[in-house]
Amino acid sequence: MEDGRREVTIHEVGPRDGLQNEPEVVPSDAKVELVTRLADAGLRRIEVTSFVSPHWIPQLADGDEVARRAPRRQGLRYSALVPNMRGYQRLLASGLPTAAFFVSASETHNRKNVNRSIREHLDGFRPVAERARSDGISLRAYLSTVCGCPYEGAVAAPRVVALVRDLLDLGADEISLGDTIGVGTPDQVQSLVKAVGEVAPLEKIALHLHDTYGRALVNARAGYESGIRIFDSSLGGLGGCPYAPGASGNAATEDLVDLLEASGVATGIDLNALVETAAWVERDLLGRSLPGRVFRARLGAGRSGGAPRSREE
Amino acid sequence: MEDGRREVTIHEVGPRDGLQNEPEVVPSDAKVELVTRLADAGLRRIEVTSFVSPHWIPQLADGDEVARRAPRRQGLRYSALVPNMRGYQRLLASGLPTAAFFVSASETHNRKNVNRSIREHLDGFRPVAERARSDGISLRAYLSTVCGCPYEGAVAAPRVVALVRDLLDLGADEISLGDTIGVGTPDQVQSLVKAVGEVAPLEKIALHLHDTYGRALVNARAGYESGIRIFDSSLGGLGGCPYAPGASGNAATEDLVDLLEASGVATGIDLNALVETAAWVERDLLGRSLPGRVFRARLGAGRSGGAPRSREE
Repeated sequence: MEDGRREVTIHEVGPRDGLQNEPEVVPSDAKVELVTRLADAGLRRIEVTSFVSPHWIPQLADGDEVARRAPRRQGLRYSALVPNMRGYQRLLASGLPTAAFFVSASETHNRKNVNRSIREHLDGFRPVAERARSDGISLRAYLSTVCGCPYEGAVAAPRVVALVRDLLDLGADEISLGDTIGVGTPDQVQSLVKAVGEVAPLEKIALHLHDTYGRALVNARAGYESGIRIFDSSLGGLGGCPYAPGASGNAATEDLVDLLEASGVATGIDLNALVETAAWVERDLLGRSLPGRVFRARLGAGRSGGAPRSREE
Repeated sequence: MEDGRREVTIHEVGPRDGLQNEPEVVPSDAKVELVTRLADAGLRRIEVTSFVSPHWIPQLADGDEVARRAPRRQGLRYSALVPNMRGYQRLLASGLPTAAFFVSASETHNRKNVNRSIREHLDGFRPVAERARSDGISLRAYLSTVCGCPYEGAVAAPRVVALVRDLLDLGADEISLGDTIGVGTPDQVQSLVKAVGEVAPLEKIALHLHDTYGRALVNARAGYESGIRIFDSSLGGLGGCPYAPGASGNAATEDLVDLLEASGVATGIDLNALVETAAWVERDLLGRSLPGRVFRARLGAGRSGGAPRSREE
């Protein structure tokens, strides 16, 4: 990868973005253990829950408890999704330092998610953003469908750039560009980052890539080459739609860490600990296969008790 | 991706490299149907079998029959693996135009596979190579473990370059560089291709990437950017070790085609036909999950009957 600062920050979204799609409610104790294991593995950014109405996401109804019980560590920053002032107040009460909120680059996708236009949604969030600023809470914005929308198809880069500007105006300290449906290509990621870089310092921009079509890593590399140093990912690739077994959701944290470290880019994360945690999630938490490649390969190598079997090339 | 010729050739290895690891013997009729479906999807290079002793790979004991029955098409070239003169004679009798043979860049890996040193193996193959040249049979060499060996670890680029030279001397018309255990990084692929390009025209060089750690696509892009225009892959990612469910083997043909086509690189292959064929292999041929991402995502989208479910980013 390119020269310059050869280290990245991983923003782990598994406990929130990963678990929110799981049909079986995971006990709070297990969620706290998951967050603890992630912190132990060296992650310094973990999104622990979402303070939305339990009506919308029953899986995360215990957000207050999980946020309160998640272990505090030096240099570790937790975030939680906050859709509105009520959610923000729960975040504040839980003592988390970062509020995350969502907006889509596609009108239809935004409406399907929050039942409002993009403009209404941004305006509606402004009082929360102002409150966060005065409370010293940092604000992370998820800007989704930046590479394409499941309803509208292509999303033009200038639209994404305009929204990045709006989000900066709103007071976002960081903006995570989400390829929600995994349709971005490396070229597209590079040109989008270049365009965004003209209105925002890239230190404030993260990439939130999905592996739906197996492109999370190739797009991450393209983003890294373009100057991005913050990547969202999810342990084991948690977050795939559980109704389509094997379908991939978020970039798997351990796949990303493995590629970066092998490429000489420091993540500060213990890959072995991630692999063990992914295996634990699969076995004890969900009881189903996760799509991540690296922990699967490492477990397979462990099971067969040695070097991979080979025959011809 | 870079400018220049924006088209690639895919060398499909599923029927040979994919099936050879499957424990349950696939009936010959099904193998012929697989090859036919791949040809119908637009593949113009298909490795149909291996003419090794049935003792070593019982799965491919019907190689002569499959090679004979595979449908002939304009512009379609079949190949088969040929370990020695006896195998070569079977290839000749089957009427296939391309003989493929294997050598490893790692002494230990070579010995584990063919019980001979690299030098002995190359010398032993020379009479076959000479015979192929006089018969007008083209020769494809698989040079494996070019990015690392399961037994020896790192493999130095100069060693790979020296072997590429040896293989050209032997009369290889094409050399497929294999990242057998999937440990290569994009940087490594790029520097290796650059080094190889100094002793061989890149039109003669293919990349044979494995997705063990999810790096097949990112390494393929690195190879493409370095000037490689021939890629080996396997339908559905066939070729993972079946004893480690979900573990990945070869780059999945449809994942590669999907990325390339989305990036504006022509493959000449019908992605929908590949997706249907991968689903058929999974359901009717093997009865187990294949690791490919794209056909899984497309099947999932089909099952849920519409756009992907979304909630927040």
